[in-house]
Amino acid sequence: MIEVYAFATPNSVKVPIALEELGLPYDLRAVNVRKGEQKQEAFLSLNPNGKVPVLVDDGFVLTESAAILVYLAEKTGKLLPTGGAARARVFEQLFFHASALSPAFGNAGFFKRSSPEPQPIAEARFTSEAERILGLLDSRLSTQAFMAGDAFTIADIAHFGWLWRRQFPGLTLDGHPNLSRWYEAVAERPAVQRAIVRVEALVETPASAA
Amino acid sequence: MIEVYAFATPNSVKVPIALEELGLPYDLRAVNVRKGEQKQEAFLSLNPNGKVPVLVDDGFVLTESAAILVYLAEKTGKLLPTGGAARARVFEQLFFHASALSPAFGNAGFFKRSSPEPQPIAEARFTSEAERILGLLDSRLSTQAFMAGDAFTIADIAHFGWLWRRQFPGLTLDGHPNLSRWYEAVAERPAVQRAIVRVEALVETPASAA
Repeated sequence: MIEVYAFATPNSVKVPIALEELGLPYDLRAVNVRKGEQKQEAFLSLNPNGKVPVLVDDGFVLTESAAILVYLAEKTGKLLPTGGAARARVFEQLFFHASALSPAFGNAGFFKRSSPEPQPIAEARFTSEAERILGLLDSRLSTQAFMAGDAFTIADIAHFGWLWRRQFPGLTLDGHPNLSRWYEAVAERPAVQRAIVRVEALVETPASAA
Repeated sequence: MIEVYAFATPNSVKVPIALEELGLPYDLRAVNVRKGEQKQEAFLSLNPNGKVPVLVDDGFVLTESAAILVYLAEKTGKLLPTGGAARARVFEQLFFHASALSPAFGNAGFFKRSSPEPQPIAEARFTSEAERILGLLDSRLSTQAFMAGDAFTIADIAHFGWLWRRQFPGLTLDGHPNLSRWYEAVAERPAVQRAIVRVEALVETPASAA
């Protein structure tokens, strides 16, 4: 049985999306990052890095959302071409997501919303980098349907996580018609919708929290 | 023939290290990032993201240093286990490097050295994150010889790049005996030494620049 420790976060949602796309059943277990549960001892024994998501597959514990995507794709032989240029393009986008988009979006959001004092140079640095990245993705999608080529792959799942949560860094898809078209196409996929419903259900409503 | 567009940077050095370890011949072409050559049109046609390194393998252009490592490992069947938990651990470390270590080190260095005005919260945020990551790696290396297990893999090559350039973010290996032992073991590998000599030769000396 597969267990996923997650919350309604940009990185968490990728794993249920992949599992729904692949048709693999899973238990979803809430780690409430708003309450800091990812820094508590019980969770740190699963992931010393203190981050969601974590996958547990029949006792094998794996962290890092993109590494989990690769693992699930290779386990099933789906969502990742088995060779050639098409495969390399998926890894290129996975690492572009991990090293560029994800830290830019996360830090833009932090300096816009969470920094104890304004840090205007930092806020501008990450916001402009995030905007630059949106432009690169829009340009890429002007000649192909999906992030790594003409097929939907785990590269799309990786990018979708932060684009779904683009309000945190205060970004929009305005002026990026190709990226908007891609976003709508991914958001409309039944597996993506099922995954979003499941991760959003992990967040307690005010009523249930009261 | 393989061509590598690179400079003496944390991400660039990974590719020549992998090529030297794999025994693949390559042409190394300097992209002087100190002069901004990575943002010039000639280079942007290779990589619209404006970053080194770029690999060109018989006309196939690939960006993102870690994606290049995966490509070269799969091309040769070396430095990356072909299945099981050992393979997943390599991807886990590659993505931990790309999403955590690399942005923390890069941004710690920027706010320490390059920011036009001090941004103390930003500097502290990235410096403490980089220190936390060094601690996690040291702890990991207390029970295994290399980053992803008992064998040297592309995960070690990925982490080595920034640890080799740790002076930029002002970090040391002091207090991290396991990480120090790992660093010395990797730095002593003949292939690593050959790669460093080659990337350092890309930087013009004051005499030749005069």
